[in-house]
Amino acid sequence: MKNFESANLQSLLEEVAIGARSVIGRGKVADYIPALARISPDKFGMVVCGVDGSEFAIGEADETFSIQSLSKVFALILALETVGPNTLWKRVGREPSGSAFNSLVLLESERGLPRNPFINAGAIVVTDSITAHSVSPILQLMGLVRRLAGNQKIYLDENVAQSEAEHGHRNAAIAHLLKSQGNLEAVVEDVLAAYYRQCAIAMTCRDLARSFLPLANGGTHPLSGEKVMTPLRVKRINSLLLTCGLYDGVGNFAFRVGIPAKSGVGGGIIGVIPGKYSICVWSPELDQTGNSLAGTRALELFSRKTRLSIF
Amino acid sequence: MKNFESANLQSLLEEVAIGARSVIGRGKVADYIPALARISPDKFGMVVCGVDGSEFAIGEADETFSIQSLSKVFALILALETVGPNTLWKRVGREPSGSAFNSLVLLESERGLPRNPFINAGAIVVTDSITAHSVSPILQLMGLVRRLAGNQKIYLDENVAQSEAEHGHRNAAIAHLLKSQGNLEAVVEDVLAAYYRQCAIAMTCRDLARSFLPLANGGTHPLSGEKVMTPLRVKRINSLLLTCGLYDGVGNFAFRVGIPAKSGVGGGIIGVIPGKYSICVWSPELDQTGNSLAGTRALELFSRKTRLSIF
Amino acid sequence: MKNFESANLQSLLEEVAIGARSVIGRGKVADYIPALARISPDKFGMVVCGVDGSEFAIGEADETFSIQSLSKVFALILALETVGPNTLWKRVGREPSGSAFNSLVLLESERGLPRNPFINAGAIVVTDSITAHSVSPILQLMGLVRRLAGNQKIYLDENVAQSEAEHGHRNAAIAHLLKSQGNLEAVVEDVLAAYYRQCAIAMTCRDLARSFLPLANGGTHPLSGEKVMTPLRVKRINSLLLTCGLYDGVGNFAFRVGIPAKSGVGGGIIGVIPGKYSICVWSPELDQTGNSLAGTRALELFSRKTRLSIF
Amino acid sequence: MKNFESANLQSLLEEVAIGARSVIGRGKVADYIPALARISPDKFGMVVCGVDGSEFAIGEADETFSIQSLSKVFALILALETVGPNTLWKRVGREPSGSAFNSLVLLESERGLPRNPFINAGAIVVTDSITAHSVSPILQLMGLVRRLAGNQKIYLDENVAQSEAEHGHRNAAIAHLLKSQGNLEAVVEDVLAAYYRQCAIAMTCRDLARSFLPLANGGTHPLSGEKVMTPLRVKRINSLLLTCGLYDGVGNFAFRVGIPAKSGVGGGIIGVIPGKYSICVWSPELDQTGNSLAGTRALELFSRKTRLSIF
Repeated sequence: MKNFESANLQSLLEEVAIGARSVIGRGKVADYIPALARISPDKFGMVVCGVDGSEFAIGEADETFSIQSLSKVFALILALETVGPNTLWKRVGREPSGSAFNSLVLLESERGLPRNPFINAGAIVVTDSITAHSVSPILQLMGLVRRLAGNQKIYLDENVAQSEAEHGHRNAAIAHLLKSQGNLEAVVEDVLAAYYRQCAIAMTCRDLARSFLPLANGGTHPLSGEKVMTPLRVKRINSLLLTCGLYDGVGNFAFRVGIPAKSGVGGGIIGVIPGKYSICVWSPELDQTGNSLAGTRALELFSRKTRLSIF
Repeated sequence: MKNFESANLQSLLEEVAIGARSVIGRGKVADYIPALARISPDKFGMVVCGVDGSEFAIGEADETFSIQSLSKVFALILALETVGPNTLWKRVGREPSGSAFNSLVLLESERGLPRNPFINAGAIVVTDSITAHSVSPILQLMGLVRRLAGNQKIYLDENVAQSEAEHGHRNAAIAHLLKSQGNLEAVVEDVLAAYYRQCAIAMTCRDLARSFLPLANGGTHPLSGEKVMTPLRVKRINSLLLTCGLYDGVGNFAFRVGIPAKSGVGGGIIGVIPGKYSICVWSPELDQTGNSLAGTRALELFSRKTRLSIF
Repeated sequence: MKNFESANLQSLLEEVAIGARSVIGRGKVADYIPALARISPDKFGMVVCGVDGSEFAIGEADETFSIQSLSKVFALILALETVGPNTLWKRVGREPSGSAFNSLVLLESERGLPRNPFINAGAIVVTDSITAHSVSPILQLMGLVRRLAGNQKIYLDENVAQSEAEHGHRNAAIAHLLKSQGNLEAVVEDVLAAYYRQCAIAMTCRDLARSFLPLANGGTHPLSGEKVMTPLRVKRINSLLLTCGLYDGVGNFAFRVGIPAKSGVGGGIIGVIPGKYSICVWSPELDQTGNSLAGTRALELFSRKTRLSIF
Repeated sequence: MKNFESANLQSLLEEVAIGARSVIGRGKVADYIPALARISPDKFGMVVCGVDGSEFAIGEADETFSIQSLSKVFALILALETVGPNTLWKRVGREPSGSAFNSLVLLESERGLPRNPFINAGAIVVTDSITAHSVSPILQLMGLVRRLAGNQKIYLDENVAQSEAEHGHRNAAIAHLLKSQGNLEAVVEDVLAAYYRQCAIAMTCRDLARSFLPLANGGTHPLSGEKVMTPLRVKRINSLLLTCGLYDGVGNFAFRVGIPAKSGVGGGIIGVIPGKYSICVWSPELDQTGNSLAGTRALELFSRKTRLSIF
């Protein structure tokens, strides 16, 4: 069997979409806030961006959805720029968590050092490191996101942010615990406000796939030519995506799909194939580990059919 | 060796005080809030109240201090009156915690049911059950405390309450976690405000020993004649004091002293010898488990010298 | 309401038995070894021994059953005699465990110091301390048991011991873990053999109630006049029974019944009312915490009807 | 900076060796068994095998050492052949453990399903799956190892195996716990004997690098031409190496080095760069997570200097 060729990518996406859509109905849309619960479960969009500037889309590729935890990657990029790796990695670990994304247990037993920047506790520390050094952390983050996506119209859904705040007692517990452990610089309420707002950014599959292109291209954005980060930082962020990007489903995802990826409870999931593609899928139903069910399936099918993975 | 006689109790207290004072210097005054940290570590007061109305005192028996966790017993008594045992025991367990008093781990693994009413999580639920059913929970609690102590001048130190609130991020974490788990009825901020204020009540050893007399006398207050609770409730509260009253030092305290007791980080500790005495000791230095060092020693010496214990 | 009088104790036992028998059918006989699983679930026996030499019995008071964990109390008494408290308490803690009796988690996190002598890990260390200092630890233990019960015919059921050994992989795991942590002196296989055999001792309610009389009588056996231990050791063992004797049901038992007690998965449960009685009940069905269902109920009814408890 | 060229690989290895050797003295040779403790800490060997048949070596490349946990990869390959993936993955998970390699805690809380095949509990289940289906599991494993390495002289050091058995109480605890949880088919003692023996296989860096070549070459051994496994199985094993191969240092290793790898307490560590190389380094001193200190450093330098990683 020979490898796929780029020319066939559109028809391959169609096959992938058919296979991925077939699992819709077996998952569950996130319902902890009303704004997410009311999304139609049968949405499916997918965009593949090549480092050569090519772009392939299928389904609801241009419909906005709540990026939720996908924002943790943007926040990490911004925090590394803002405070530098030496400062940040003293406050956050780089190991898979081995337990649910919003657990307080590890935080307590490990004295306030969150396992990695993609569990909620770690993401809150990352957001804090920006918040403590900026008068308008969210404006900065929105600026980065719009630049990476090449879309100045990307907005923040204040209704979602408000709804997150009202239902965010577990995140508030995490932030207060971090504060009591001395690993939160800014005021708890300020950090949480920024955190809820970053999660409420609304983007399309196309926006997201484009904005992750630098991670597939050694740090340079192929569309704008901007050198967003060094190749070393790309390598490191991709390694964190692989070992920590999918909560406690990370090992199984690496086993089945084999590419660095990040998911959000809004149903978005983005994968990176270094040197080749960034791929964003959106389908709101989640599996038991909180990852998009059809999105995971789509990435698995894409990896299998293209024979592309990092392994 | 014959048993002690009441007549000799004053001289026995003097012996006990000498022995107990000798350990002062080996502990550490609570320093998590300034208001507690500035207390002189060499304070020592002790009052023994007999169910026959007798009363013996030594040292700083009439100096006020912050009752802190001792308030959890008053709050439990009030909550049992307010919402009844059937309602309360659905929300709080009755087992020793086996871990530190302010741990979030158990709370998470046991889905929001605190192990017992004397760890912080349980005490916050107890306070919530009062708060949710009262326009002025603290006024009610102050009323109970003043009545039990027979002292209308007992006050609440608002500076301490304010200080607790400012340094209370761990308790805030616990309350938010309970809220997210569905085991907090009132608004988080209201429950915490009430909780910090109950901890800030200021009392003397004499006030406290008198207020615990009903637990030594089958529920009837020997000084006022008021029937405060039933004998069955007395038995149950005393059992909770024995199995849960001293955090993770509970087994060792039962082994060494052998009486139901409750301690607070303000340095107060109260023991109950059913049918005989209530005993309050105050000495601000704490041992490693957070219990008054000289207070524990005083109760141990008292138990040994009088040969009184529940075992 | 006046207190009960000894004269009425026999008729009170009849009432207790009726009430206790009524819960039979809601529990589950231990089935991890065939020898226990085949016991008829509707057995019920109860014996109350007074420190004045009085004795009251009802039901299958003279039928032998497997004492299982009740043996841990005899082993503790023997170990304290053999190696002394200073040595023993360096190897075993005195705090309630807060988790299931056969858990390895605490053992690992606390580096080989079992929480107390009544969880399996602690009991194995206690047995080891005897085994390491005796050529025939079980003969010694049988000698103590027979002497305390005043019955030379007490035997050890080798079939049960054999069956325990065959199904004892969890206890083997505990013993090997203790060995790897440096808290086992004797050879693992020898300790386990002794442990399985002590659990397989067969006794009647009458044997057991008599053998616990010293714990109700300040250390002196009222039937033989033998001074078995000091009053201080009695106080301490009773405190351990109260805080650690019933696994993770200890707080609830203290709340409902309020007396020091020990249970075994053979369905036996013994309570001690200091200065008054030792009480043994046998009923094979267990509740969810592994304690005899009707046995617990019988002790609760006895405590309520006599108004006797330590609180 | 341009990419390295194969021609320069020997001189690059010399640079790597100098850099890696410089950290020797900061780690600690495994000392839990005498046979390992007596190895000289300043040993250093490294072999790089290319999928094109090229081979580069430096230092003690042909000195045998105890492969220890590296054997877990061979055992996994054999078990997948023997019982098939469907059977095996029902008994072992595929998630990073988030805690120490020999922990019993997770095993207990997750009811006998080890997190992954490379922590001890998982490896014991893997060995059990072979043991339960073979009269001579170790002969089979030795056969596989010799074939993959192309070296019939590879032997098993019975002294090391014996020493492991004598000091293996923690592994015995794990095996007994697995047995009690119903996840061990063969007799505990048989599984442990096989497990200790597989850890005691002695190999050189050259043997090991050659034997891992199929994982760098899509499943086909470039030296023998044997199709050892399918490309899909290669991808999956490599993903497991990346997410679970280095105990609780896995995230940090991926961050710093970025290639699938497996380490052993004998000081061996093997990395795989899919499509390019297999690399084995040996240096006995271990870091705090139990991985070869200079070996990890060597792989990091190799990855950095060649700019090769999977990210």
